[in-house]
Amino acid sequence: MTDTLVPLRFSEEAVAKGVRERRFEVERGGSVVPGLLWTPAEADGESPLVLLGHGASGTKREDYIVALARGLVRHHGLAAASIDGPVHGDRRTDGSIHGERAFLDFAQRWSSDEGLIDTMIADWRATLDALGGLDDVAGGRCGYWGLSMGTIFGLPFVAAEQRVAVAVLGLMGLTGPTRERFETDAPLVRCPLLFLVQWHDELFPRDRALELFGAIGSTDKRLHAHPGLHGEVPAEEFEASGRFLASHLGP
Amino acid sequence: MTDTLVPLRFSEEAVAKGVRERRFEVERGGSVVPGLLWTPAEADGESPLVLLGHGASGTKREDYIVALARGLVRHHGLAAASIDGPVHGDRRTDGSIHGERAFLDFAQRWSSDEGLIDTMIADWRATLDALGGLDDVAGGRCGYWGLSMGTIFGLPFVAAEQRVAVAVLGLMGLTGPTRERFETDAPLVRCPLLFLVQWHDELFPRDRALELFGAIGSTDKRLHAHPGLHGEVPAEEFEASGRFLASHLGP
Repeated sequence: MTDTLVPLRFSEEAVAKGVRERRFEVERGGSVVPGLLWTPAEADGESPLVLLGHGASGTKREDYIVALARGLVRHHGLAAASIDGPVHGDRRTDGSIHGERAFLDFAQRWSSDEGLIDTMIADWRATLDALGGLDDVAGGRCGYWGLSMGTIFGLPFVAAEQRVAVAVLGLMGLTGPTRERFETDAPLVRCPLLFLVQWHDELFPRDRALELFGAIGSTDKRLHAHPGLHGEVPAEEFEASGRFLASHLGP
Repeated sequence: MTDTLVPLRFSEEAVAKGVRERRFEVERGGSVVPGLLWTPAEADGESPLVLLGHGASGTKREDYIVALARGLVRHHGLAAASIDGPVHGDRRTDGSIHGERAFLDFAQRWSSDEGLIDTMIADWRATLDALGGLDDVAGGRCGYWGLSMGTIFGLPFVAAEQRVAVAVLGLMGLTGPTRERFETDAPLVRCPLLFLVQWHDELFPRDRALELFGAIGSTDKRLHAHPGLHGEVPAEEFEASGRFLASHLGP
């Protein structure tokens, strides 16, 4: 365990194929934000950071999150970090590892807890403050990537946080309990954006997703859509995400 | 001038920065199809061919057509060919070089000439037959790229021609005089497809374009949309087109 000026503790370090993975905890106002950090194993100065927001029922260690993070490090020389969403992963007080249970709990909190989004924004900001102070992670400009619940929290975060210089959002629309919040925040998103849509999304209908894309304030934005259900985003969009993020954060 | 078994004549050859450009004419049923062929200047065997269909008011030598063709050759090792659309370029009997005049004539023919699309399909097939017989152009599998009028002719061509193994279409929807033809042909398109949409398209409304994307039969399809008017497709989609075509035609 290491202590830094920002309350940040590390544990469980591993290195594989050029990528260093560290579990971390950020303290914020008496609560703990658990996360993972991926950086080049042989750090050559500071790498720009991409924050990765997982979807409902997942965790910071979701397969596609880890794969995306490792790809950002290995192919683009970036750093990446992921934190558990509320009622997910190591933040669950009951220790349940069942995704369905987390999904249900999230849906209930989304509907009833008006402070949920702002709490998560504060968690991301504390994470960015803490990690940006490390020797091998660049402070300042960063990227954000998050689909579905990763957009439910991520779009308001990107709208609020000027350090986010590029974002990938999607699998979400102008719908659900926070629709009004989105109507307010979407025009405030101004950074270069890639927005992903699944044509046969069974959770958040395509038309509402197209509406959300239209409402986003960025002039430099693009939408990529594929056939398939909510969970069927193809590999090519993870590759496109990496290229897009790197094109705005890379050297 | 050279003669081959298929009535194909070459003229006006030029080489620049690794790209050989040849003007050609294909004879088909008494009429002449004028075109341009781009191949690697130092041919190393046969290059797979991409057919490029220009938009209304343009010609086979339109800036974006030439730039795309040269990029396909230089960055992806492909060959590319473009032919004048009906009432465009060297096919105009009055010699007019005014795009607006060609646009008007095309709009009239599109509305009144039921054989227009099938004639252009036959022109593309004759071009493919002729060029595929060259030593430095691969016969068989090819690609097709065409937006707007390039899709009005291209979608039925791709639907009809089994040699087309990959296509980029867009800036067009289920609308206009050939809407019924499109409703029939779109489900017959089965090859991997990239479909481009301009969010503020003033010629063919976005909703009709989304409908067309939905109607296309390919399971391997993706839609890329950007803000902007009909003519404002950004450079990144020309680059994406090149990568996409090459990923299906390249070695």
